[in-house]
Amino acid sequence: MKETKHDQRMIREHHLLLLFKIIKRNGPISRAELAKKTQMSATSASRIVKELIDQNFVDETGQTEGNVGRRATLLKINPSGALIIGINIDLESIEVGIVDLDGNVILKKDRDIDLSLPPTEVLDRVVELVASIKAQIGELSNRIIGCGVSIPGIVEWPQGRVVMIPQFHWANVEIRKYLEEKIGMTVLVDNQVKAILLGESLYGSVVGVDHAACIFVGSGVGGAFMDKGEVIRGSKNIAGEIGHTTIDPDGSLCDCGRFGCLQTFICASALEKESGKPIHEIFAAEQQQEVWAVKMLDRAAEYLSMAISNVVCTYNPEAVVLVGPMIDQHPQWVKKVEQKCKRYLWDNFDRMLEIRYPHIGSHAGIVGASCLVLREFLESPISK
Amino acid sequence: MKETKHDQRMIREHHLLLLFKIIKRNGPISRAELAKKTQMSATSASRIVKELIDQNFVDETGQTEGNVGRRATLLKINPSGALIIGINIDLESIEVGIVDLDGNVILKKDRDIDLSLPPTEVLDRVVELVASIKAQIGELSNRIIGCGVSIPGIVEWPQGRVVMIPQFHWANVEIRKYLEEKIGMTVLVDNQVKAILLGESLYGSVVGVDHAACIFVGSGVGGAFMDKGEVIRGSKNIAGEIGHTTIDPDGSLCDCGRFGCLQTFICASALEKESGKPIHEIFAAEQQQEVWAVKMLDRAAEYLSMAISNVVCTYNPEAVVLVGPMIDQHPQWVKKVEQKCKRYLWDNFDRMLEIRYPHIGSHAGIVGASCLVLREFLESPISK
Repeated sequence: MKETKHDQRMIREHHLLLLFKIIKRNGPISRAELAKKTQMSATSASRIVKELIDQNFVDETGQTEGNVGRRATLLKINPSGALIIGINIDLESIEVGIVDLDGNVILKKDRDIDLSLPPTEVLDRVVELVASIKAQIGELSNRIIGCGVSIPGIVEWPQGRVVMIPQFHWANVEIRKYLEEKIGMTVLVDNQVKAILLGESLYGSVVGVDHAACIFVGSGVGGAFMDKGEVIRGSKNIAGEIGHTTIDPDGSLCDCGRFGCLQTFICASALEKESGKPIHEIFAAEQQQEVWAVKMLDRAAEYLSMAISNVVCTYNPEAVVLVGPMIDQHPQWVKKVEQKCKRYLWDNFDRMLEIRYPHIGSHAGIVGASCLVLREFLESPISK
Repeated sequence: MKETKHDQRMIREHHLLLLFKIIKRNGPISRAELAKKTQMSATSASRIVKELIDQNFVDETGQTEGNVGRRATLLKINPSGALIIGINIDLESIEVGIVDLDGNVILKKDRDIDLSLPPTEVLDRVVELVASIKAQIGELSNRIIGCGVSIPGIVEWPQGRVVMIPQFHWANVEIRKYLEEKIGMTVLVDNQVKAILLGESLYGSVVGVDHAACIFVGSGVGGAFMDKGEVIRGSKNIAGEIGHTTIDPDGSLCDCGRFGCLQTFICASALEKESGKPIHEIFAAEQQQEVWAVKMLDRAAEYLSMAISNVVCTYNPEAVVLVGPMIDQHPQWVKKVEQKCKRYLWDNFDRMLEIRYPHIGSHAGIVGASCLVLREFLESPISK
């Protein structure tokens, strides 16, 4: 029976990303092995490989060296076959990087962010950085397939409209539309934690984990979760905002305007507000055994471990990646969080959850942002 | 290019259930309209329709009556073309029903459950009911395509092994394996709330809602959630167990063995334990304005509305279906829950969430259980 265009598109959408991932993890690999791993026919696998080669995402590289049978050509990722601009916008700075298909940042520029400016002027600074980094790589800029943006807060997907970023005092900002007009290429915008999880799942600590989670602890608390390899978004891309679940209706005011949100017990900005001291002084005071600081950080560790345990009941991931400044900078505190988890985790599920730490490190936002573009490019026609 | 078996299987898996649902909602409908609604080619749509007709799931019924163009044959669901045995096992009783493709229970039998018996003996009672109901429908039993079982607690999917049902004091019971051996047909077993949500999404209050949620309030509190039309299961089918998220680390002992789980503030059995009175007396005392009862039920309403609001942040559904005895039997209390929701819901998302009530009613467990089989039958080869 004849295959229709619809059928072909559907098969392409499901397998281009899949084959890319398998070649990334297992390459150099032959077409036959690829077909076997995916249970695809050799015909279908070869057709999709051809498309990956045509796009310069994949290269042929030598041949198998077996003793018997026909020699097979091997395939591997061509790191610089396509480039993506990854943009990370957060409370401290704007970072713009060129990311290759191995997830490496080959060039990076950043500048402080001035949140007293209106949102469009902040975005104009982003546009300037993009222009400057493109100029610097010269001819290579022809290989750029799009821009990804990672930003805290709630972002409609794939429209790229910021619904709200309480920490920025931004609401209803059409980031995607604004940047696409100024930059002249596809721009995809997502919540920072979702972007980081995508990065870790493609290049980092949860490669091959189908049910992965990411909890970010910094100026806020956020979460991102995957079920069967797909980010859980819900109807408006809010799913995962565990930092704003109400824990204590009589708790403190959160920057979202409600009371007793989970993050008011854990995140740096809430602890700073409560104590009137910057976060590094709180940790320093804890080192000096000052009772208020010991209690405050102990309570924060308690609530974070409770949150990790609750994530098992709500999303049931195999692994949780803990990320963000509060995690990176305070290993002793994180050790305490891990110990406390034992108190909360359901007996049966104690050994079910692995706590992991990011592999990508300081470029997590940029690399994650680039993965938005890579996934979309491989999964479906990119313009929406 | 030649279409491979793999490709055909993949297209079938994605579209058989989809076309069934569209014919269910929109029938009588022509093949051309079906193809249009799904963006499939006429060839692919017709091939899948042929399979639905061959399976007796779908019937041809008359022709369009338009004035212009060629007349088209119309398609509709054939309700009795296939039958499914739906089994609901809960604290009170074992119910077994024959469910048709319209989600109607055409015959039902039940009996009290005796939880002092070992699990296999309880399952033997199920087997007896199945045998008796099959005998009663005579020849029609040839149309049965499988058995679905809905049961509270944590059930591995699709293995059908009960990990634990705290209320039953069951752990590690191989329900699927045991019943398949005794009944001699495919048996699929899932958590009760997940089954109810599947039923409501195929036949009830959330038909066509891609991001639907279900919260059950009865002897326990449970949740089930869909993202893009698929139940979120996580790695071990625990996702959705919001009743066992820790809310207050210093709270009361839960039947799961931990302290301060959400359900200890809300569910009937917890309120009964705390007050030493059966739930109907608690509600009666509230009617008499007895302070303890007013406060206890007010607190329960407060925590349930907080839980509903938290579900928006964690899963971001378009609609939440509230189900279970506490909901069905106490409309005044439920009204209070709805009012309190306003306090917790994030301003921006206030109008984003619809609270709904089940359409299926007292047979929800049976119908939900049947949907496990229907979905699996249409989505993939049924034996796993």
